Amino acid sequence: MISLINNPNDVVTEFIEGLVETYPGLQYLDGFPEVKVVLRADISAPTYDKVAVISDLILMRWEWARACSCWICRDGMLTAAICGDVFASPPVASILAGIRAVTGPMGCLLIVKNYTGDRLNFGLAAEEAKAEGYKVEMVIVGDDCALPPPQGIAGRRGLAGTILVHKIAGAAAASALSLSDVAAEARHACGIVGTMGVALSVCTLPGQPKSDRLGPGKMELGLGIHGEPGAIVADIQPVDLVVSHVLNRILSEETNYVPIKRGSHVVLMINGLGATPVMELMIAAGKAVPILLLEHGLAVVRVYTGSFMTSLDIAGFSISIMKAEQAILQRLDAATKAPHWPVGVDGDHPPAKIPVPVPPSRSTKSDEVLSRPQELNQQGGALEIAIEAATLAIINLKDSLNDWDSKVGDGDCESTMSRGATAIQEDLKKY
Amino acid sequence: MISLINNPNDVVTEFIEGLVETYPGLQYLDGFPEVKVVLRADISAPTYDKVAVISDLILMRWEWARACSCWICRDGMLTAAICGDVFASPPVASILAGIRAVTGPMGCLLIVKNYTGDRLNFGLAAEEAKAEGYKVEMVIVGDDCALPPPQGIAGRRGLAGTILVHKIAGAAAASALSLSDVAAEARHACGIVGTMGVALSVCTLPGQPKSDRLGPGKMELGLGIHGEPGAIVADIQPVDLVVSHVLNRILSEETNYVPIKRGSHVVLMINGLGATPVMELMIAAGKAVPILLLEHGLAVVRVYTGSFMTSLDIAGFSISIMKAEQAILQRLDAATKAPHWPVGVDGDHPPAKIPVPVPPSRSTKSDEVLSRPQELNQQGGALEIAIEAATLAIINLKDSLNDWDSKVGDGDCESTMSRGATAIQEDLKKY
Repeated sequence: MISLINNPNDVVTEFIEGLVETYPGLQYLDGFPEVKVVLRADISAPTYDKVAVISDLILMRWEWARACSCWICRDGMLTAAICGDVFASPPVASILAGIRAVTGPMGCLLIVKNYTGDRLNFGLAAEEAKAEGYKVEMVIVGDDCALPPPQGIAGRRGLAGTILVHKIAGAAAASALSLSDVAAEARHACGIVGTMGVALSVCTLPGQPKSDRLGPGKMELGLGIHGEPGAIVADIQPVDLVVSHVLNRILSEETNYVPIKRGSHVVLMINGLGATPVMELMIAAGKAVPILLLEHGLAVVRVYTGSFMTSLDIAGFSISIMKAEQAILQRLDAATKAPHWPVGVDGDHPPAKIPVPVPPSRSTKSDEVLSRPQELNQQGGALEIAIEAATLAIINLKDSLNDWDSKVGDGDCESTMSRGATAIQEDLKKY
Repeated sequence: MISLINNPNDVVTEFIEGLVETYPGLQYLDGFPEVKVVLRADISAPTYDKVAVISDLILMRWEWARACSCWICRDGMLTAAICGDVFASPPVASILAGIRAVTGPMGCLLIVKNYTGDRLNFGLAAEEAKAEGYKVEMVIVGDDCALPPPQGIAGRRGLAGTILVHKIAGAAAASALSLSDVAAEARHACGIVGTMGVALSVCTLPGQPKSDRLGPGKMELGLGIHGEPGAIVADIQPVDLVVSHVLNRILSEETNYVPIKRGSHVVLMINGLGATPVMELMIAAGKAVPILLLEHGLAVVRVYTGSFMTSLDIAGFSISIMKAEQAILQRLDAATKAPHWPVGVDGDHPPAKIPVPVPPSRSTKSDEVLSRPQELNQQGGALEIAIEAATLAIINLKDSLNDWDSKVGDGDCESTMSRGATAIQEDLKKY
């Protein structure tokens, strides 16, 4: 276990304490360790004049976010997030406490990912809250496209598409819509989004040894966010093939999970599963956009790239595709103070690249200088041989130079030297 | 290597392509593979009426960000980011191209982390740009607190504190200050920030096998962001001890790296190094705030928790402390559209926790129901023994239940069952 966590029982409460230290717009209910509820610090249930949007935050399903506060008070995301223990659904008592803490006369919407425990606990809490006089609606998200239908009574799992549903419902609530209208928008959003994930490692539960379920060089397609095994295990392939395969599954006409036809506009989310560098997520995003256009005839109008719904330290990512209807875009683009909703994603795309600026004057002379004589004289020939031998020696030292450099520096000395030597060799041939 | 990257030579250009797909406010210069420069899409050098702020983006030093665009056009961050290859300084030609692309009559500020290659290449580019008639200033960031002074001519390395310097310089430039004023603010910021990192793993260079320099159960204190070995290797310790140790080093009166005295206000940054879940970063933030208050007499007024400057897939984090002068806070709080600058961090801290709301009526009955008879009758005794045996059986199944569950579900079945069984056992003793 590569982690500084000591007692896995404390991780959620300690996480919440740090979260609230970081974001002064957040508070939590004083009910540790049983009740673990994070909520907006700027509202009070009896007087809250909008629909509260509540969801769960199962440990690193930390998509939780705070809605509109201070001067951006028209738009939002979640009003409260109910935490369970690691990968466990939050208990009914916590959900009820959260509902009571943020629900005003407009009522509350519970957004629940489709897992047995979550449906059970949120459902029970909703019934109890209704018995106490609260207006409550519940929306179940099941955006998983990994398994072929039908999947029995369990249905499709809720995955990262839930984040988009949170944003849409939060923005609808912030627009002062009624509970039934907010719920209708959220349900509609659930019907036009599909998700599938690919993992290159298995997640580590705090306090437990790392599982070796996946062998080296293997990847798993269609996993669940709690580390449930995936639908397929395959050899690791180039990222464009993986992205292409995942998109084929999500948009499969056979399963018909998402009602998106050629010629449509879509929203793309590349979601890191916990231990994937942003660099790799961006590379996947850069591959997905042209594949969607060329292979599926879909124009991508928004790209959200980041680690929005993670599964502890799984290496890998999921792809979500949502139909980009105009009303949906308006909700996604609405401003929010939710700390991790990406900014700068909307707006027209200018040309991706522009020409490298040329220097003010000196520009033409270089061509003549760089030309090679028809035939080399003796010194020239000797110099050429010496240069070739030196560059070859550098290239041959590849592994040992990197190894030595990693003991005193950053371990890339030979990679850099080798690039330089190769460039010199190519120059020699060119001129 | 747990990664979908095939050709390490392509990662940076493919990363930039995905970055620009995600953020329409960004463009890149059409000079791949030699010139890798990302810049704001909304400005044009000849007419840009503010100081351009330029820094490097060495692969996963992806703190790069876009400054003010559209309606928030008063505040910013970087104007252009110059990319090198993985862990290599950007070449002079790229830096020059970036300067030419964004620098208007107000000039440009180069913010450079203190590494030999960066100083050399940025310094050469600055001289060439000046020869072309540009106004250029350069600020070197060296916030590393890991090594005792003096460290020879190399000086202290630039680490995550650079992000704070970017934000301060970007906001100063967005306020339409002159080049010398922006540079003065950036230099002042460099003098009041200190950083130290702790790593639990070594980073993997794309295309190379994972190094096993750190053994299992070990951590490295004071590493560099390119994977340079740390100052100390020690056994992994509880997170509060690690945080306490790092803070002692940063604030050491012996080295006197940051001029922060008891009673001051400070800014805290907990920066993930690439593969550390946000949960663990938040836990570290939650530990650091009280330690700073109780052990160092410092009040933390801003906390930035996230992965701002990463080193590929290193597990671990760095801590930066900056003196929170009023002018500094104003720059840090200024709005920006930089995609990953955290929002919702400023503002007064309300009480971290509020009472759990009580249900409307039914509340007193439970006490009498839960009391236990003085002496159990025969059936009661048998029931107690049966309950004890059942809970014990569940607890004893610990490892095998988790193992079976991980084959069909999320691998935490026994952890959940065991918590329930333990709670029942405790209840039996209590009443």
